[in-house]
Amino acid sequence: MKFRKYIVSVWLGLLFGTVALAQQQVPATKPNKAQQLMIKRGYGMFIHFGVNTFTDIEWSDGSIPVEKYNPTNLDPDQWVRVARDAGFRYVLLITKHHDGFCLWDSKYTDYDVASSPVKMDVVKAVSDACKKYGLEFAVYYSLWDRKEPSYQDKDPQKYIDYMKNQLTELFTNYGDICELWLDGGWDRKPEDWGMDQIYKLVKGFNPNCAISVNHTIVNEAGKRDFTHPSVMTEDNTYFFQYFPSDFRLWDPMLITRYDKKQYLHEGQSYYLPFEHTICISSRWNWFQKSMDLPVRSQDELEELFYWSTYNDNCLVVNIPPDQTGRIREYEANAVISLAKRIGITKNKPLPTNGTFISALQDVTASSTLVEDGVSYAATAVTDGNLESRWSAADTTGFLDITLDPKKRFNKITIFEYQDTKQLDDGFSNIRSNRIQEYIVQIWNNGNWETIYIGAEPMGDCKVIRFPKYYQTAKLRFSILKATGLPAIKEINIIDMPEAQNKKG
Amino acid sequence: MKFRKYIVSVWLGLLFGTVALAQQQVPATKPNKAQQLMIKRGYGMFIHFGVNTFTDIEWSDGSIPVEKYNPTNLDPDQWVRVARDAGFRYVLLITKHHDGFCLWDSKYTDYDVASSPVKMDVVKAVSDACKKYGLEFAVYYSLWDRKEPSYQDKDPQKYIDYMKNQLTELFTNYGDICELWLDGGWDRKPEDWGMDQIYKLVKGFNPNCAISVNHTIVNEAGKRDFTHPSVMTEDNTYFFQYFPSDFRLWDPMLITRYDKKQYLHEGQSYYLPFEHTICISSRWNWFQKSMDLPVRSQDELEELFYWSTYNDNCLVVNIPPDQTGRIREYEANAVISLAKRIGITKNKPLPTNGTFISALQDVTASSTLVEDGVSYAATAVTDGNLESRWSAADTTGFLDITLDPKKRFNKITIFEYQDTKQLDDGFSNIRSNRIQEYIVQIWNNGNWETIYIGAEPMGDCKVIRFPKYYQTAKLRFSILKATGLPAIKEINIIDMPEAQNKKG
Repeated sequence: MKFRKYIVSVWLGLLFGTVALAQQQVPATKPNKAQQLMIKRGYGMFIHFGVNTFTDIEWSDGSIPVEKYNPTNLDPDQWVRVARDAGFRYVLLITKHHDGFCLWDSKYTDYDVASSPVKMDVVKAVSDACKKYGLEFAVYYSLWDRKEPSYQDKDPQKYIDYMKNQLTELFTNYGDICELWLDGGWDRKPEDWGMDQIYKLVKGFNPNCAISVNHTIVNEAGKRDFTHPSVMTEDNTYFFQYFPSDFRLWDPMLITRYDKKQYLHEGQSYYLPFEHTICISSRWNWFQKSMDLPVRSQDELEELFYWSTYNDNCLVVNIPPDQTGRIREYEANAVISLAKRIGITKNKPLPTNGTFISALQDVTASSTLVEDGVSYAATAVTDGNLESRWSAADTTGFLDITLDPKKRFNKITIFEYQDTKQLDDGFSNIRSNRIQEYIVQIWNNGNWETIYIGAEPMGDCKVIRFPKYYQTAKLRFSILKATGLPAIKEINIIDMPEAQNKKG
Repeated sequence: MKFRKYIVSVWLGLLFGTVALAQQQVPATKPNKAQQLMIKRGYGMFIHFGVNTFTDIEWSDGSIPVEKYNPTNLDPDQWVRVARDAGFRYVLLITKHHDGFCLWDSKYTDYDVASSPVKMDVVKAVSDACKKYGLEFAVYYSLWDRKEPSYQDKDPQKYIDYMKNQLTELFTNYGDICELWLDGGWDRKPEDWGMDQIYKLVKGFNPNCAISVNHTIVNEAGKRDFTHPSVMTEDNTYFFQYFPSDFRLWDPMLITRYDKKQYLHEGQSYYLPFEHTICISSRWNWFQKSMDLPVRSQDELEELFYWSTYNDNCLVVNIPPDQTGRIREYEANAVISLAKRIGITKNKPLPTNGTFISALQDVTASSTLVEDGVSYAATAVTDGNLESRWSAADTTGFLDITLDPKKRFNKITIFEYQDTKQLDDGFSNIRSNRIQEYIVQIWNNGNWETIYIGAEPMGDCKVIRFPKYYQTAKLRFSILKATGLPAIKEINIIDMPEAQNKKG
């Protein structure tokens, strides 16, 4: 009977102090120590590396021969140097993906680096480099294992024991691990993963380790309909599917500006921050491919950074080493440039975006698309939600955003809803803009005054910086030319400290 | 006999001191005082405003009724505030264009502001604002006059006297004028403009005023084939067509990185810096149009600024007020943002670009277009000349630039040769990129290492900043996708002080 267990655990906690307490998750409306430390870290580098790297594949099933793993110039020290130079606070390493291949020498399988042509213990190399460069170390471990025989056993406990053995290797041989990221839980029932055992085991090694499973939250207790982060705007409305869990995950979704933190389990409310995951690749690939793929623009990286680290949430950016075993220069350059651009510096709080003076403001549109009974209303552009959008019913048109003329702004960011084309390679896609020309105007003494003209497509995210502050009762965003019905996810009108705005 | 005149003038100069001397131009290999001051100013705002502003026309013939000139909110103080905020050192005002319309109340014509609905003396308003905001004041005055009756007189001296009268008004009623920019000289023989009289008159008012006529230099003495700035790479090779002249003009051409300063007149060599003229509009319009037109990108403005102010030359940027009589906000924002971006600050020397480590380096190409007997050779991209270009013979290809591996770089700028489309409005054009995807690689330990991927068209000028310095024996620029035969005017590989590179 679970309620009794909880009472006993609290009682033991009170008796034996915080270590014992930390091994259970207790109802709370504020972050506990592990969560506080996680929120303070805020920004990590995600590293996907393994057998998939050598086969141009995103996911594999354990059948790739271990010999395929053969980096020619394996250099985990370089990975962590890049992380340090880019201002990341921690490195989150794939230690085992769904294919079951382990990046350390595990006693419990031969499908690991020790059996491969390049025997370097990558977990050790990365954790050592983290100590050397002053970063924290975190691990991703796939629950779903398509290789390990015990995974197929009728008794789920067999595989749970396998996981506990491997996690014990990870948590006892490589120093402190600040976070455990579990994935692939959809492949069996939540109760068959032994989350309570895993949680207790790991917290015993490090009570401050933050633990979670991808798609942490569901719409209904006991059901598997994962709660989309875009609707997490009310406390005590959604439920844990994996308990205990210290934070929320829903790779690769983004939460809203109005993200809430209280989630239910067996009638109790728990505090849970959100950790975002994004790829540096603008074409969404997690494991590196043999072909060079473009990275996200600095504008998009800046705004995704601010968006994802806002409101006590966190961000990890995936920067996967290639077949040589090194992070590519152009990908390293993208995150290091971002750090210089917005001032992500060691030992300083993470930089924050300015004040959104457009937040939840009224918006009217020249036209609104209604399709299949759905109205793509103008207010979507100020609702703080990147999943909702306004769409015009015509290829040109405008939005008028009402503002408080007492409030000032010097920055505008625009997220266009883009066309997405899946590529033949099966893993990547290309986004493309519909809007080709646009104009930003403010209402000034009875006239529309143009403060910006965009004569080129705005890319994945457009940041417009003004060299001065403006104040106005309404702002107009007009689309002069588009290749289809233009649609906008968000327009953020921002009051940024001037020194920070100059830098970007 | 001119040689004797020169001797006499020098003798008089020695006798009566520097003022008398300054009224003649003397052979020299160094800048004189007026030129020194001009070079020190370096960066000015050009202002086209007049009857054309109200008719969406670039040039007119004097037939536009004076009533058409009717700004609704004329505010020259705003023009100069923008100039100050953008770091300009001087304002160069059109006082009379080819149409003959005067922006001051001239005793010698009725085709002026005093006869128009808005009688404000614009020359006075701008010169006053320049004093108020600490900028210098310069005037453009068209030699060619399509309105003034004396211009049609058989005796050229009649119109020369008209000009001298008007210039006397300008130079005696508005305080110091640092520069006189004369235009339209092509309409009659050089000797019919009375340049010696005008020069002497103006220098009598202000010996430090720098004076010149558009298309100052010709290929052959006495002929009218204007010397293109792109060939001005040897001293004492080209000739004055208007003498005296303190500097060179060839609107809107750009000189090369190897611009020379010595030009010939009657067997003597004179020192002449170059003043560049560019439009803030990316579509080349001088007088403002009723329709908002886009401005040049910050990347292009930055590189044109550096290019034009390099090597003791100067730049004026045209930012024309509109029919209301004010500079448009989005155009003001472009130059003020540039000033913040690269650090153009009052009382500080103008910022400079870094060292071009690619200058005159060897380049090889995957293919070279030969068309009509012209070979578009690869070395064009490092020749410091924006008029020459490499063109591939195929829609994809690459350039390999040999570098000194002892030299470092952290910035690359690329000027693509673009397609230009003349628009129906008769005054503007649109440039468009052929190259759609490209990649930059360096040779590193026997491999090509990708340091940048461009997945979007590079616009009118592309600036790539790296967060670290690279050193390599060769750099490869590859074109992965293009809509036609790709062509490049310049690739500049630059060693930039790190603090400056971070800012941009």
